[in-house]
Amino acid sequence: MCITVDAGRLQHRLAELAAIGAIEATEGCARLALTDEDRDGRDLVVTWMRDLGLHVTIDAIGNAVGVLGAETVAGAVLTGSHIDTVATGGRYDGNLGVLAGLEVIESVLDAGIEPARPLAVAFFTNEEGARFAPDMLGSLVYAGGLQLEDALDAVAIDGAVFGDELDRIGYRGTSPVPGPVPHAFVEYHIEQGPVLERQGMGIGAVTGVQGISWTQYTFTGQSNHAGTTPMSYRRDPGLVAMRVGAFVRDLVDEIGPPQVGTVGRIELHPNLVNVVAARATITVDVRNTDDTALSDVETRVAEFVRQAAADEDVEVATETLARFEPVEFDARVVDLVEEIAASAGHTTMRLPAGAGHDAQMLARICPSGMIFVPSVDGISHNPAEHTAPGDIAAGANVLARTMLRLAETDFETGRGARS
Amino acid sequence: MCITVDAGRLQHRLAELAAIGAIEATEGCARLALTDEDRDGRDLVVTWMRDLGLHVTIDAIGNAVGVLGAETVAGAVLTGSHIDTVATGGRYDGNLGVLAGLEVIESVLDAGIEPARPLAVAFFTNEEGARFAPDMLGSLVYAGGLQLEDALDAVAIDGAVFGDELDRIGYRGTSPVPGPVPHAFVEYHIEQGPVLERQGMGIGAVTGVQGISWTQYTFTGQSNHAGTTPMSYRRDPGLVAMRVGAFVRDLVDEIGPPQVGTVGRIELHPNLVNVVAARATITVDVRNTDDTALSDVETRVAEFVRQAAADEDVEVATETLARFEPVEFDARVVDLVEEIAASAGHTTMRLPAGAGHDAQMLARICPSGMIFVPSVDGISHNPAEHTAPGDIAAGANVLARTMLRLAETDFETGRGARS
Repeated sequence: MCITVDAGRLQHRLAELAAIGAIEATEGCARLALTDEDRDGRDLVVTWMRDLGLHVTIDAIGNAVGVLGAETVAGAVLTGSHIDTVATGGRYDGNLGVLAGLEVIESVLDAGIEPARPLAVAFFTNEEGARFAPDMLGSLVYAGGLQLEDALDAVAIDGAVFGDELDRIGYRGTSPVPGPVPHAFVEYHIEQGPVLERQGMGIGAVTGVQGISWTQYTFTGQSNHAGTTPMSYRRDPGLVAMRVGAFVRDLVDEIGPPQVGTVGRIELHPNLVNVVAARATITVDVRNTDDTALSDVETRVAEFVRQAAADEDVEVATETLARFEPVEFDARVVDLVEEIAASAGHTTMRLPAGAGHDAQMLARICPSGMIFVPSVDGISHNPAEHTAPGDIAAGANVLARTMLRLAETDFETGRGARS
Repeated sequence: MCITVDAGRLQHRLAELAAIGAIEATEGCARLALTDEDRDGRDLVVTWMRDLGLHVTIDAIGNAVGVLGAETVAGAVLTGSHIDTVATGGRYDGNLGVLAGLEVIESVLDAGIEPARPLAVAFFTNEEGARFAPDMLGSLVYAGGLQLEDALDAVAIDGAVFGDELDRIGYRGTSPVPGPVPHAFVEYHIEQGPVLERQGMGIGAVTGVQGISWTQYTFTGQSNHAGTTPMSYRRDPGLVAMRVGAFVRDLVDEIGPPQVGTVGRIELHPNLVNVVAARATITVDVRNTDDTALSDVETRVAEFVRQAAADEDVEVATETLARFEPVEFDARVVDLVEEIAASAGHTTMRLPAGAGHDAQMLARICPSGMIFVPSVDGISHNPAEHTAPGDIAAGANVLARTMLRLAETDFETGRGARS
């Protein structure tokens, strides 16, 4: 079935949503989860859903779903992503998947097409994890991977409680979680990495998501004067934190691809030039497509942390902020995306996602997959995040055709997945 | 000459001064330079000077000197320190040296002693450098090491201008700077480090002040997503900063005492768990009593910084925040302090000062030295800063006897310095 979306209308909606929480003099925006900006973004997207005549439900964790042709997403072909951003966010990350889903539905309506199953588009709460841990919280609760009560008790980096903030912005809905099981889920997203661009590929058929491990280490030593304290008397937690930061890179380099590892956050207290810190906190983010390899890395980092802290007579507290096993997407969905992209004349490759995505949570309950388009210079989580308009349009058309084909597919028999 | 100060009267004054800017529920206080609290502290101490009949002068940078037995400090035996504090200050740092000086003079008056030369006590402006850079500004200007105009133009961390604030609190005096040359200067101060306590020593005869070098490095790389960016594509300034932090410790350990080095401040931007930082800033504080050794350390750190930044394809900007050469105190003053302390039955040792002190500036113009007493647990720049009352009294008595002996000493011939 040949359908072409209105790429200009999609760009218009991307710009309109990006104006909420816009970061001055950039194309980016800041809409941290459950802030006033997030609320305003939600209001806009829900209005658009309603304007298209979709049946909109808000569930108990604030996920919003708009369904065309049915009152429930159960059995529908679902697409979507998230509209919360990091503090230094771009306009495409998450938003593209939601607004392209809207665009597909509007194009289907415009074309008078009757899909074989209902179509639906969703945005999930707190995907970024920039304000509340864990990330992908909304889709995780939707898929039954986290109890609602635990999610509502999450505390923000600014001290606010998730449930309170959800009430405050008016998005604690009445639909139950875990949510209804869709027929299939496909998420359209920018790659957020440099691989497609550097390989000269237009469309990525995403094979799965790397396993992710986030650990926070808090080291406590003895604050003292940097000039008057002989080195042998020191118990410097800042030093231990920095040693761990260097070790993570050395370890990851030793292991080689696809292992990655990052220490993106470090905080010393009191953080003064001439004071040995009393306390230091760092986060360690390690990812791999192989879970055993990832567990090995976690163990080796933990051993180094223990030894480095002991060497400096510093206490260490360890907190797991997030841990997700690698996810493999449904081979039938991955094949379908690849086939549709290739048949539309796009250069295409299979690749794993390096970031977490809502699709990995939906993969727990229904056949799922993802479509990637290139990110210029691989830049993301940055106002300079950009994807060429032609790539945006290409991906949206692949999404449209994939959704319609998924609607025709009977996964019990395999009918429809292959043409 | 045997003189004994009134230790209770000294403790009373310490408590009365500490009540100005008191930090609730602690023994500490906050009187940042040229704030209202600093003014109130100055007013109190100047009142005490006048009550003792001292001839008080305020100079053009706000240093206050009270002289007994003369109208000018020229040719007098001067003691003193500072009464400004850091934001989380204790009650002894600086204040002890000023109030013990007052106590010595009051005790000399009470005992009817006629010193061989005039005695004087001073407090110098902005020693801490917690509000205005550089630290020890007042004594540096007094000694002719910084032009008055440059000092008056210094801008506070809160944006205020030094000269304006000096006018505002009414302490821009009429006495000229550089100031009159005293016969000798001796400063009584808490150690602010753990050495005396750990060695079981009551009195420290300070041999000099370590050279101090503060450098700030700002690294600029490429922010990106921690999951999607292969390691080979990364330009991570946070990693470079942490490698430098670890290197500074390794280098200092390799060199051994008295070299010390500290990275007490590090800041990443945006400082998020799943984002490779765009920018990282660290400060490196290195100190040594030997200037050649200190310069070597600076060179080796700079070389490591350059190489580590180049390896990660990260740009680096270097800023010198402070640089003071080591100071050696006058051997005759150091010997005298040690001899008087030992003859009074105190355990005593010679040691360098790890922190900057006003005495290092006065050492430029007259024979100078310092007396240290132990700091409990080496804690300073903290409301928990404490020195036992017995140690406070012992140091004050050593100060009194040292001042009287210095008054008898003719440095041209050496007469009087040795009994």
